[in-house]
Amino acid sequence: MSQPTITAADLQAQIPRIFAPWIVALDLQVLRAAPGEVDLSMPVHAALVHVGGVMCGQAAMAAADTAMVLAMMAQLGEFRPMTTVQLNTSFLRPVGGPRCEVRARVLRSGKSLAFGQIDIFGEDGRLAVQATTTYALL
Amino acid sequence: MSQPTITAADLQAQIPRIFAPWIVALDLQVLRAAPGEVDLSMPVHAALVHVGGVMCGQAAMAAADTAMVLAMMAQLGEFRPMTTVQLNTSFLRPVGGPRCEVRARVLRSGKSLAFGQIDIFGEDGRLAVQATTTYALL
Amino acid sequence: MSQPTITAADLQAQIPRIFAPWIVALDLQVLRAAPGEVDLSMPVHAALVHVGGVMCGQAAMAAADTAMVLAMMAQLGEFRPMTTVQLNTSFLRPVGGPRCEVRARVLRSGKSLAFGQIDIFGEDGRLAVQATTTYALL
Amino acid sequence: MSQPTITAADLQAQIPRIFAPWIVALDLQVLRAAPGEVDLSMPVHAALVHVGGVMCGQAAMAAADTAMVLAMMAQLGEFRPMTTVQLNTSFLRPVGGPRCEVRARVLRSGKSLAFGQIDIFGEDGRLAVQATTTYALL
Repeated sequence: MSQPTITAADLQAQIPRIFAPWIVALDLQVLRAAPGEVDLSMPVHAALVHVGGVMCGQAAMAAADTAMVLAMMAQLGEFRPMTTVQLNTSFLRPVGGPRCEVRARVLRSGKSLAFGQIDIFGEDGRLAVQATTTYALL
Repeated sequence: MSQPTITAADLQAQIPRIFAPWIVALDLQVLRAAPGEVDLSMPVHAALVHVGGVMCGQAAMAAADTAMVLAMMAQLGEFRPMTTVQLNTSFLRPVGGPRCEVRARVLRSGKSLAFGQIDIFGEDGRLAVQATTTYALL
Repeated sequence: MSQPTITAADLQAQIPRIFAPWIVALDLQVLRAAPGEVDLSMPVHAALVHVGGVMCGQAAMAAADTAMVLAMMAQLGEFRPMTTVQLNTSFLRPVGGPRCEVRARVLRSGKSLAFGQIDIFGEDGRLAVQATTTYALL
Repeated sequence: MSQPTITAADLQAQIPRIFAPWIVALDLQVLRAAPGEVDLSMPVHAALVHVGGVMCGQAAMAAADTAMVLAMMAQLGEFRPMTTVQLNTSFLRPVGGPRCEVRARVLRSGKSLAFGQIDIFGEDGRLAVQATTTYALL
């Protein structure tokens, strides 16, 4: 199988090169990587907490999109230009902290389009946020 | 009509009180407010630009969600606790900068659920990002 | 301008040729067509009404997708093979009947992807269902 | 545990009582039921096939929504009035036939809102359609 294998450390090293500084500030840690799959740990930094005392939903959406890019790199074996076509997020439960886990899976990777699902679990292991997304490969 | 009127300046003053610091850093400016409607100006700061040279989609989603909260405040005449149930974003065109405009409209505000649409226009006036969302009033 | 113009009557004639019989049974009537735009009238037939006494949401989703195909034909000047990539529907209000109106607009038509919005209005003229969609041109 | 248990046969018997005749015509067969979970078999009847020779996407969306209602009944132990708030469907692969399988899972069932995921698999066992949805309990 000639597809190069991307490790969690490889993906971690790519984060500051690919993403905007505002995203790098989320301080996502790549826990595991496999073809089409990544698991990230996300700290619920004070900067992400809104007046309600929980992680803002915007941070969850941002983490979901970021995780899918990393899962696509793990799928393709390299970073290729791609763009999010749409991302749909459902917020099932609040995320309290101090960390949450973000799991992205590529559901289908075609020639021009890719589909993925991202689940975010709270510290208690319960599903807190679920996203589905479509990407276009450029 | 007894509903208090919220002005653009009122909403602007609320931003640092309600949203997480990571969202306040987006530096959104409230241009106009009317019941159920807000228009925001969003600077494409360098911190929001990814390796592709355009504004990251995560910032667009974050702005959409934030704008809807403000539009709901403009609808209700006050800030009330609410939570995003789901937000769906489509990315039609890249946002280059130096600014974009975010327009949020409450489509329906019921007793427990509210629906909204958010459009983000590039400097050229073309629709770049479109989002629809459902909120639960707590 | 060399793009052929498709009329409402042209689109009406295409419905039984393109769509599945189960969709043709919805009895959609094309009221107006313009490039990238169609307005349809949809009868709330008894077969579409569920135990709650209103039009089933499944019929609204089906009409939205169908209307977008017709709007794309009105955009392109012909029927071209295309596939729905995703369709997201929000249900704001029940649709009672006896008719509703379905308005589809192409928001962007690119080389390989197209984006659209579909609004369904009840007899009272209020927005009842809103959908956004992405299509892939084959 | 006092929650009544609903069987696949119970759900099957409810289909013609709850859903619109146009939905009953889909001829969905309940294969398995457990609290918050149902698996359905869906025949790709000729009436559901469009000009492209595969099952129309509208039928997939309709089956997803229908399956979620049944999964909610299996969750709650009874039929309770509920309404779809939003349903988002991604179309990963065409569904050829002669059958597909529809699997609905309640991800969270709260007091007023419920969240679910529906996967549709083709005859080859591959994921063809994925939907996520939010319901309001009335």
